[in-house]
Amino acid sequence: MTFTVNDRFKMFTLSSNEPLTKDIVRHLGSELGGSNVQRFSDGEVKVNVEESVRGGEIYVVQSIAHPSSDHLMELLIMIDALKRASAKRINLVIPYFGYSRQDRKARSREPITAKLIANLLQAAGATRVITMDLHAPQIQGFFDIAVDHLLGMPILSKYFAEKKIENGVIVAPNNGGVKAARELADILGMPIAFIDKRQTGPRESEIVNIIGDTAGKNAIIIDDLIDTGKTIASAAQALKDSGTETIYACCTHAVLSGNAVELIEQAPIEEMVVTDTIQIPEEKQGKNMKVLSAAPFFAEAISRVHNRQSVDKLFKR
Amino acid sequence: MTFTVNDRFKMFTLSSNEPLTKDIVRHLGSELGGSNVQRFSDGEVKVNVEESVRGGEIYVVQSIAHPSSDHLMELLIMIDALKRASAKRINLVIPYFGYSRQDRKARSREPITAKLIANLLQAAGATRVITMDLHAPQIQGFFDIAVDHLLGMPILSKYFAEKKIENGVIVAPNNGGVKAARELADILGMPIAFIDKRQTGPRESEIVNIIGDTAGKNAIIIDDLIDTGKTIASAAQALKDSGTETIYACCTHAVLSGNAVELIEQAPIEEMVVTDTIQIPEEKQGKNMKVLSAAPFFAEAISRVHNRQSVDKLFKR
Amino acid sequence: MTFTVNDRFKMFTLSSNEPLTKDIVRHLGSELGGSNVQRFSDGEVKVNVEESVRGGEIYVVQSIAHPSSDHLMELLIMIDALKRASAKRINLVIPYFGYSRQDRKARSREPITAKLIANLLQAAGATRVITMDLHAPQIQGFFDIAVDHLLGMPILSKYFAEKKIENGVIVAPNNGGVKAARELADILGMPIAFIDKRQTGPRESEIVNIIGDTAGKNAIIIDDLIDTGKTIASAAQALKDSGTETIYACCTHAVLSGNAVELIEQAPIEEMVVTDTIQIPEEKQGKNMKVLSAAPFFAEAISRVHNRQSVDKLFKR
Amino acid sequence: MTFTVNDRFKMFTLSSNEPLTKDIVRHLGSELGGSNVQRFSDGEVKVNVEESVRGGEIYVVQSIAHPSSDHLMELLIMIDALKRASAKRINLVIPYFGYSRQDRKARSREPITAKLIANLLQAAGATRVITMDLHAPQIQGFFDIAVDHLLGMPILSKYFAEKKIENGVIVAPNNGGVKAARELADILGMPIAFIDKRQTGPRESEIVNIIGDTAGKNAIIIDDLIDTGKTIASAAQALKDSGTETIYACCTHAVLSGNAVELIEQAPIEEMVVTDTIQIPEEKQGKNMKVLSAAPFFAEAISRVHNRQSVDKLFKR
Amino acid sequence: MTFTVNDRFKMFTLSSNEPLTKDIVRHLGSELGGSNVQRFSDGEVKVNVEESVRGGEIYVVQSIAHPSSDHLMELLIMIDALKRASAKRINLVIPYFGYSRQDRKARSREPITAKLIANLLQAAGATRVITMDLHAPQIQGFFDIAVDHLLGMPILSKYFAEKKIENGVIVAPNNGGVKAARELADILGMPIAFIDKRQTGPRESEIVNIIGDTAGKNAIIIDDLIDTGKTIASAAQALKDSGTETIYACCTHAVLSGNAVELIEQAPIEEMVVTDTIQIPEEKQGKNMKVLSAAPFFAEAISRVHNRQSVDKLFKR
Amino acid sequence: MTFTVNDRFKMFTLSSNEPLTKDIVRHLGSELGGSNVQRFSDGEVKVNVEESVRGGEIYVVQSIAHPSSDHLMELLIMIDALKRASAKRINLVIPYFGYSRQDRKARSREPITAKLIANLLQAAGATRVITMDLHAPQIQGFFDIAVDHLLGMPILSKYFAEKKIENGVIVAPNNGGVKAARELADILGMPIAFIDKRQTGPRESEIVNIIGDTAGKNAIIIDDLIDTGKTIASAAQALKDSGTETIYACCTHAVLSGNAVELIEQAPIEEMVVTDTIQIPEEKQGKNMKVLSAAPFFAEAISRVHNRQSVDKLFKR
Repeated sequence: MTFTVNDRFKMFTLSSNEPLTKDIVRHLGSELGGSNVQRFSDGEVKVNVEESVRGGEIYVVQSIAHPSSDHLMELLIMIDALKRASAKRINLVIPYFGYSRQDRKARSREPITAKLIANLLQAAGATRVITMDLHAPQIQGFFDIAVDHLLGMPILSKYFAEKKIENGVIVAPNNGGVKAARELADILGMPIAFIDKRQTGPRESEIVNIIGDTAGKNAIIIDDLIDTGKTIASAAQALKDSGTETIYACCTHAVLSGNAVELIEQAPIEEMVVTDTIQIPEEKQGKNMKVLSAAPFFAEAISRVHNRQSVDKLFKR
Repeated sequence: MTFTVNDRFKMFTLSSNEPLTKDIVRHLGSELGGSNVQRFSDGEVKVNVEESVRGGEIYVVQSIAHPSSDHLMELLIMIDALKRASAKRINLVIPYFGYSRQDRKARSREPITAKLIANLLQAAGATRVITMDLHAPQIQGFFDIAVDHLLGMPILSKYFAEKKIENGVIVAPNNGGVKAARELADILGMPIAFIDKRQTGPRESEIVNIIGDTAGKNAIIIDDLIDTGKTIASAAQALKDSGTETIYACCTHAVLSGNAVELIEQAPIEEMVVTDTIQIPEEKQGKNMKVLSAAPFFAEAISRVHNRQSVDKLFKR
Repeated sequence: MTFTVNDRFKMFTLSSNEPLTKDIVRHLGSELGGSNVQRFSDGEVKVNVEESVRGGEIYVVQSIAHPSSDHLMELLIMIDALKRASAKRINLVIPYFGYSRQDRKARSREPITAKLIANLLQAAGATRVITMDLHAPQIQGFFDIAVDHLLGMPILSKYFAEKKIENGVIVAPNNGGVKAARELADILGMPIAFIDKRQTGPRESEIVNIIGDTAGKNAIIIDDLIDTGKTIASAAQALKDSGTETIYACCTHAVLSGNAVELIEQAPIEEMVVTDTIQIPEEKQGKNMKVLSAAPFFAEAISRVHNRQSVDKLFKR
Repeated sequence: MTFTVNDRFKMFTLSSNEPLTKDIVRHLGSELGGSNVQRFSDGEVKVNVEESVRGGEIYVVQSIAHPSSDHLMELLIMIDALKRASAKRINLVIPYFGYSRQDRKARSREPITAKLIANLLQAAGATRVITMDLHAPQIQGFFDIAVDHLLGMPILSKYFAEKKIENGVIVAPNNGGVKAARELADILGMPIAFIDKRQTGPRESEIVNIIGDTAGKNAIIIDDLIDTGKTIASAAQALKDSGTETIYACCTHAVLSGNAVELIEQAPIEEMVVTDTIQIPEEKQGKNMKVLSAAPFFAEAISRVHNRQSVDKLFKR
Repeated sequence: MTFTVNDRFKMFTLSSNEPLTKDIVRHLGSELGGSNVQRFSDGEVKVNVEESVRGGEIYVVQSIAHPSSDHLMELLIMIDALKRASAKRINLVIPYFGYSRQDRKARSREPITAKLIANLLQAAGATRVITMDLHAPQIQGFFDIAVDHLLGMPILSKYFAEKKIENGVIVAPNNGGVKAARELADILGMPIAFIDKRQTGPRESEIVNIIGDTAGKNAIIIDDLIDTGKTIASAAQALKDSGTETIYACCTHAVLSGNAVELIEQAPIEEMVVTDTIQIPEEKQGKNMKVLSAAPFFAEAISRVHNRQSVDKLFKR
Repeated sequence: MTFTVNDRFKMFTLSSNEPLTKDIVRHLGSELGGSNVQRFSDGEVKVNVEESVRGGEIYVVQSIAHPSSDHLMELLIMIDALKRASAKRINLVIPYFGYSRQDRKARSREPITAKLIANLLQAAGATRVITMDLHAPQIQGFFDIAVDHLLGMPILSKYFAEKKIENGVIVAPNNGGVKAARELADILGMPIAFIDKRQTGPRESEIVNIIGDTAGKNAIIIDDLIDTGKTIASAAQALKDSGTETIYACCTHAVLSGNAVELIEQAPIEEMVVTDTIQIPEEKQGKNMKVLSAAPFFAEAISRVHNRQSVDKLFKR
């Protein structure tokens, strides 16, 4: 990576994922701009930018992760401050774009919160978004500004490729994830399967079924994110029950709400592979959890964006 | 359906699907407003609205189907004419929303044409969209105006429910369609399977594989639209080759480009069930094709929208 | 108040101040619409609207009080849901407009968060705002939609007028509040004074001085809001130290952060009079605190807005 | 012309007038950027941009000529692709701006399609338009972005000046064209005349009359565009019938719809002079047709725009 | 005219043309709303609206005539006041739309002030414009809101039709006005002519020439507006010099700047016919001037707009 | 000040305050761009820009002072001309922002004209505003573009600091000005006082009272602007009447309408100190008036903005 830092480049972090920002800055051979988030006695937030940004090409790193309202608000306030301080471009680096599961109206009177957030960011004054693995790639179209959509797949697939797992099978934990499973399977040269669930009737219990051959194989379950951990834990259990040998699991975004860490530790999962798009505090780093760094990918993307190079190759899986 | 037509209600058709519009109007017990599309010698289009629309709640029916540029242009010009003629509300009824497969940026420098079209319709002055089975439901979020998103599933599922197919299985023709297959399967109480395709390497041939049990069963392939017909024809062939008994296929939108009709007629498909969201000229109505009418659903939705009732129940599958 | 509820009228509450909303609804002789705020395991918020709002004139009551990011996010999501559900008008009733002290850029690179919030609410789709005692009345101009700006002064002044305090003086706790003090003084026919603070030099201590006659009088300190309680407590102490007899204090918005309640209880304040624009949990209702209801004023304003009457008389102090 | 190509400059062609674009590029001493227009089986269009445009100042050449809906759609999609690919500026070079005759509302419920197109191009993301001889110069005001409006007059007048026609007269083929006729007449130092048509009553025949002296003179008919050819052919015949000697005709935009070429060949027109703003396929290049190149003017304009020079002198007739 | 005034209807005047507004109101059988324009000592303007406009359909009458900046500013301030006072619709009745000659960019770095004004009116919050005889009808397209464009032609032509002028000819005073002359000629059944001016060279004198037969005839000169009066006075003189008998002149908008009244009185003009779209103070009503009222036309248009009827027939000349 | 003029920088003046602009340009060591304001016979304004601004960073100096409608209109037209002429940035330098007292809605149906003007400037195409001492600092938030808000305080305080006034007191002429008085008092190390006015009842006379000690002291009255002069003259008289020694007065903006100059000359004011943000014609420069130049501050601000430096230090009082 040949990153030419010019004097217009400045990168700031907000409070959601400072370690990742510092890692990105280190990869870029640059420095973090001075800023801090101040919280008043009544909980209102103020963002202080401690150096001039006039005419600058600014990058702000913030995941819209828990507590998502606070993190979003920090980001919106930062954009307003930068805009009024005459920043030339306000590039948002959003490793984890929260609320992205609320991306369509499935029933009457539902909001489309992911679109709302896209509108808010643009109304505040953002000029570009760099993000990773949106829950649906269509969310790119929620924006009218440029979006660089990075993929977690190369990070995850490289890790498993190096593991050289024999007799493997890629498993989608639900019917919506078959497409992603196929992509990983193509890279690793494995077959696929998925966990099918069906309702036997209203209020009756759900029947879980594995479609595809997994017995006697080594499975890698793949999902875009892990929230409560229930989906992946029950998928692992179902696989184990039907004779699968070793079971790995992976995802890009480690939301890990509630007792997710515990559930995953107790599930028959050899290794739970995630990335650091969401900051994982030490107490949440479960015994069987392996955290891969997304920093080099973000650094590469930012470098290319800043130097007006194509980010094409970053789209390759 | 208790539709109270007030004097503000007016419905117009453009040139893409006049039979469907007339059918909707008939279901509503209303009348079609006077308008026509004029084409000048040099191909430029003019839309003539022959009655006052001042203060009116206008509904315009137009599918963005082949030739899609012309049909979109007609629609945009109509919106402009209605806006300048002081229509109070301009409701677009778009049975088939063309370009909806171009809904995300999969590679560098790709447009997101579905979003572009959403922006164009809004820039022209549309105030609401009523449509059916968008390729991805996230496209609703491309709009900032209200979108009523109807489902073709109830039309298709009702038809097959009445057929009382025994020993059935629902088949998705590709990995992206497993979710829809699961929905139909839940309604009909059947298991599912899907056609898996994998690349053995760059430029090498594709291997097609059926995941799930289909041998000796009666299959219903389901897709959201049929374009060239190749996907569905090859899926049917693969099923037949692996011992499936009778094979049905269904979809909402019958794009039927190229020699799709021929391909489908020649495939081992007992019956190809589609709706009339796209006008199917007589010569394209293949021998094994069954066309179901979407008019009652659109009429119901329009009636509810016009009478300020919830369209909630239309979202139920 | 002659409030004609038509079938288009619907009022919803969010989670910041449910008691006030219920009070307003009771004054209107109307009913609260069905809705609830759902919080997922990862903290993301979903708002469920349980009845049709199509074509409705909707009023949503929400104070942007602590936790303000969450309350703002609830409100924005609600607006999005209502907009997509075809509400005709989305009227926001914001008894306390948080962040309104961040209303100008006092130093380089400061955000103007109150303007940001005005932009966000409009970007989401709000069509009107009804609020009370903005920190600066200029914030009305941050909006391009109609703002009905109610005053807390009539609530507070009526209370003190009925108390018939003799030999009174109105005191502004700082130089910015002299204008409001003059208004209350004009209504109650009293003189005014204010607490002047000056810096003796950088990093040196502040000297507090009372400008105007207060010795031997009964003082009413007035402010627009009480946050940490320090300003009002030290003002009361200064007055007491310089010979003021009984000291009352009043404000519209009872933010009461940190140990404000304790500070006020310990200060020489006979009675601390506030309104309920912000919900005050029982444990925060200090011994010397008197809470007046703003509900009748909001009900009157909403009634007039809904019935297309002038709200002129509500602007009278 | 001293054109300094910097590395930000890139020019692309779409499908309406590739020869003109290549000519412009040749004059600029530059190269055409790699792109192509792909048409799917169902007629939907995709534009592929084959090289990075990130941070670039892009010029796209496209006439909105027949088939105008397709050409407009190509252009809108291209703009969307460029915008999302982070082009810095998207300059549209539209040699022929179709639909420009639909520039006002002459009767109730007419659209103003030229304004609609201006809005669509801006909604898609265009940042500048360079065009030639709009049907009405007021169309510049339909845009809020900068428009550079070139004139075809210098191309046409230079050609006729070099012909040194004696005893000439400039003729407007209808009353709207007298102004343009006067301009050409001023350059060539000739008198003017025009063809007057009047209605003798509703449904009665039109009477054609020549106002001004043309008998025994050599006439040059001038119009901004030739569509069906009827106006210019009947004007030529009327002139011939009333004793005009040699008759020339000229216009900027050669729309040539229907049997225009035939009509013009059969009319008493010595030479029909047009420019290449619209691509004229070989079979439409009539025997008496002379095509002048507009490429040098567009190249000069683009060069000046790119090098931040005034285009003032290009406005001189 | 059957005008149903409902309680939402309110009409206000500003200071440019109070007599015309009162005339319109009288024709409508309605009453003028209470408002006044206040001018502070420093010249700043304030508009006071003295009655509630909440939910109202408001019509404001104001010509953007001399002093045009002040009249425009009054109008913009009025729109802002109405918008913030919750008016439902803000209809502008602009009998004379000033700056409409600045409707295109004829040279480098020229503004398009007519478009600027259209943008300003829309930015302020106008929802409709009713105007008459824009200098170019394309100015309608400068707006994205509905524009009802009335014509002065029926007022003028009716007057002259009743005069039963024998042996008449309609004369355009310059080459741009031939189209309007043809329209009047069609109604009155007369031939046309026009005044042609040409430059003999830079800095050399202009040669004026009459194209068409006028000798021994009675001429009616028609223009859209009369500003300095020079064009019409010199046209009348040229006609007189070449043997025209009686000469009439007419226009819609009587700007009458400088010594226009004197020039017209001294010119060989039998009668100068104008309308009252611009208020003509008594001292400017020249001896040979005849003022026709445009009030019935505006009243009819407003009535139709308010009652949601087509204004189609008002477009007929 | 190290101002690096690059070739993109151009500064233009309009007609409100040419001397100040020339002074600013002189401080910058730059030159004034060629432009002039033309006024047609009917009073319409045209702005002529005489040199290319393509790609330029343009600064236009104009105070919105009397006659404010004309000056605002000049500015809006200038912005439109610059935008259409492809200026890269349009920076407005507005030393006096007129209408800034109309910054909130104090009664029903009042406009917020200061916000209207902010909207108009942005709608026209302004990209930045540099101004001084807005009547309320919240007006910064009326803009979504960057605003650099300079303070007159350093100019005024420096002048009085050099005067070394002994035994001084700073006086606010009304209750709204106490905050500014405190600021000046902090700089000069003086106490404060203010003039309190109260209504004894409706239509009854106002009682003026001085709060704070002024007897035997030397007073400096401070206000943001002086309009009719009545406030400051009566404040000076009240001070004199109650025993104040020498009385100075100062303000940033010298509006000086009506007979303000006379009033101030006759009041017991030793020296009336103002700046030149509004051009003061010679006949208005009263005997006791001292005009300080704001040019160095504007020059410094422009230099910093243009060279992408922080203007932070200019915010320091």
